[in-house]
Amino acid sequence: MKIKIAGHYTTKIGELWDQGLEDLLAEAVHGSLKNAQLAAEQIEAVFVASKAPGEFNHQLHLNALVSQMFVHYPPAIRVEGACTAGGLALVAAEQALAAKRYKTVMVIGAEKMTDQNALKTTEILSLAADQNQEAGSSFPGLYALLAQAHMQKYGTTREQLSAVAVKNHHQAMKNPQAHFHREFTLEQVSQSSLVADPLRLLDCSTISDGASAVILSTDSSGVEKWRQKPQILGYGHAQDSLSLAGRESLTALKATQKAGKQAYQQAKVKPKEIQIAEVHDCFTIAEIMAIEDLGWFEKGEGGEATLAGKTAEDGQVAVNLSGGLKAFGHPIGTTGIKQVAFLAEQLEQGNYELALAHNVGGSGATAVVHVLAKN
Amino acid sequence: MKIKIAGHYTTKIGELWDQGLEDLLAEAVHGSLKNAQLAAEQIEAVFVASKAPGEFNHQLHLNALVSQMFVHYPPAIRVEGACTAGGLALVAAEQALAAKRYKTVMVIGAEKMTDQNALKTTEILSLAADQNQEAGSSFPGLYALLAQAHMQKYGTTREQLSAVAVKNHHQAMKNPQAHFHREFTLEQVSQSSLVADPLRLLDCSTISDGASAVILSTDSSGVEKWRQKPQILGYGHAQDSLSLAGRESLTALKATQKAGKQAYQQAKVKPKEIQIAEVHDCFTIAEIMAIEDLGWFEKGEGGEATLAGKTAEDGQVAVNLSGGLKAFGHPIGTTGIKQVAFLAEQLEQGNYELALAHNVGGSGATAVVHVLAKN
Repeated sequence: MKIKIAGHYTTKIGELWDQGLEDLLAEAVHGSLKNAQLAAEQIEAVFVASKAPGEFNHQLHLNALVSQMFVHYPPAIRVEGACTAGGLALVAAEQALAAKRYKTVMVIGAEKMTDQNALKTTEILSLAADQNQEAGSSFPGLYALLAQAHMQKYGTTREQLSAVAVKNHHQAMKNPQAHFHREFTLEQVSQSSLVADPLRLLDCSTISDGASAVILSTDSSGVEKWRQKPQILGYGHAQDSLSLAGRESLTALKATQKAGKQAYQQAKVKPKEIQIAEVHDCFTIAEIMAIEDLGWFEKGEGGEATLAGKTAEDGQVAVNLSGGLKAFGHPIGTTGIKQVAFLAEQLEQGNYELALAHNVGGSGATAVVHVLAKN
Repeated sequence: MKIKIAGHYTTKIGELWDQGLEDLLAEAVHGSLKNAQLAAEQIEAVFVASKAPGEFNHQLHLNALVSQMFVHYPPAIRVEGACTAGGLALVAAEQALAAKRYKTVMVIGAEKMTDQNALKTTEILSLAADQNQEAGSSFPGLYALLAQAHMQKYGTTREQLSAVAVKNHHQAMKNPQAHFHREFTLEQVSQSSLVADPLRLLDCSTISDGASAVILSTDSSGVEKWRQKPQILGYGHAQDSLSLAGRESLTALKATQKAGKQAYQQAKVKPKEIQIAEVHDCFTIAEIMAIEDLGWFEKGEGGEATLAGKTAEDGQVAVNLSGGLKAFGHPIGTTGIKQVAFLAEQLEQGNYELALAHNVGGSGATAVVHVLAKN
């Protein structure tokens, strides 16, 4: 049974002062239906991803909120797993399709983060860390520890971290939906304000508003040109210790490695066959670890590979061509879904055959990896 | 493919001042493993239900928190859908099993509500209503409207509402895990403090702490005595308008009716074949509507049937033998799971052949119904 991406839509990502959570969700519902050329009634179930709509927008029960945007109130489930909410909602949807309960479903993610001030937002984000063992830590602080460990073990440099940000901001220039359309030099990144040593402001991803939806279908009769649509070849979903204290290693995310292996195995694809990937660059160090953990570069060589342009559009593998979490943006629950939506569009345009999406929760306790094919 | 309830465990429900959210989850993990006679490593995936752990306990990313209670970090997903979180987590787990991704999974729900004061708790609960159309309403207020409508249309009486509370408090006397072990007379319920006319204090379910887990398995080789374990025969999941303003009727929950029909159809069971049921009595009026909407009594006859004892232990159908949300308790994300855990135990004891669990979110926007068989 093939699961196809029948349609996709991502709103503009940014500080969207004139749109509320519900507006963003509605735009993604209707945008993805239009892209798939489907009527609302053809959606049999909905999987909604959002990290903290209660904390950000005083609205829980988001499954019902989205269901009522359809005429026929399809059954809907909300999934949360910190920044992996989007990836996990895709997984739940894929399992419902594989169970043959439904043939065509929508997976939609949204986060409206700018309803709260920066301090409150940082506090809300930190709820994804272990409140018993890591209370008081912010995510820049936790990822700074990972960066320190990587630099000490492998000699990863300040310049190599900056190269991730420079590349992703450069690539976002061609993505009209991206939060930021502004390029930076290595020096500008390296000299931006210090947040948590060694991470600086321009090492960090964004606080953004936005929504994204994909329509998944196993119904070759229901979707026009179904055979030509991009396909989900395989996925992996793995966990690791919630707190850094319980990790075997601070220089790799074991959950990413395990989820990657599962996805490659199901897809029957080797890591180096992947041509384009969206990886979870919540901080620059996270992209360096990801391109190693997903098998494209040896451990410790991710920084050098990035600086050498091996992950640029014309490199060995095009990583975060969208601009990534860094410059496309990181409206939390949206991220795992907009990665797949972006890759589906790239595959449809015909320049790539095999793609990978990589979504991480917290400091690496949850990881979801998807391998996609052109059709 | 049969889905069996291989094990189940529910903590004491109550104001558990000496147990935190993590303690409750750990107790349910280990309790259900012991009940199923399974080792932790045999659990291939975990589905976690909780309504508002971010708001109540400053902890999101609960899937990772639970996964790390196992040696092998099984993949885990958190599901939310207001008070239907538990029912929806069961649905997601059933879909993963039917997809043959896993053979044995744990579904666990927890809510630790007493970390916040009563005012804050009421505010957190109200996040499950429509914040655009119903902001400022509390759930007692919304269910009071439904009660008013039912009384006006069908002549349902104050005494009939009280009969639900009297029955459920009586039945909880035999349930050692129940929050309340105290009986009330019709008069005591009818004269308890007014909360939202006509609902009084003793019409309302509890604010409780607690956790519950069930282990579902399709693996006849992996679970001892698998063939004798209770079976999930069918489930339904339906939605309706989030706000009352969008409902076709205020005297029935259409989502319950639709979910019930789906569950009966999949189970190939007629409503009146059900012998024992746990229904979502968040308020007394909710039980009266449920026993009508699920097909056991005609619309408008639920109150009279209750007062006549037709839903008591020796009645036509034993409703909320556990004490229900009213007296067993309503730790939100736990509820849909503890209903199934309780029914599994009843089926194992051999007094009943067919059971039904009914879980509702908000004022009726989400409903999940399960039909269970003795084996």
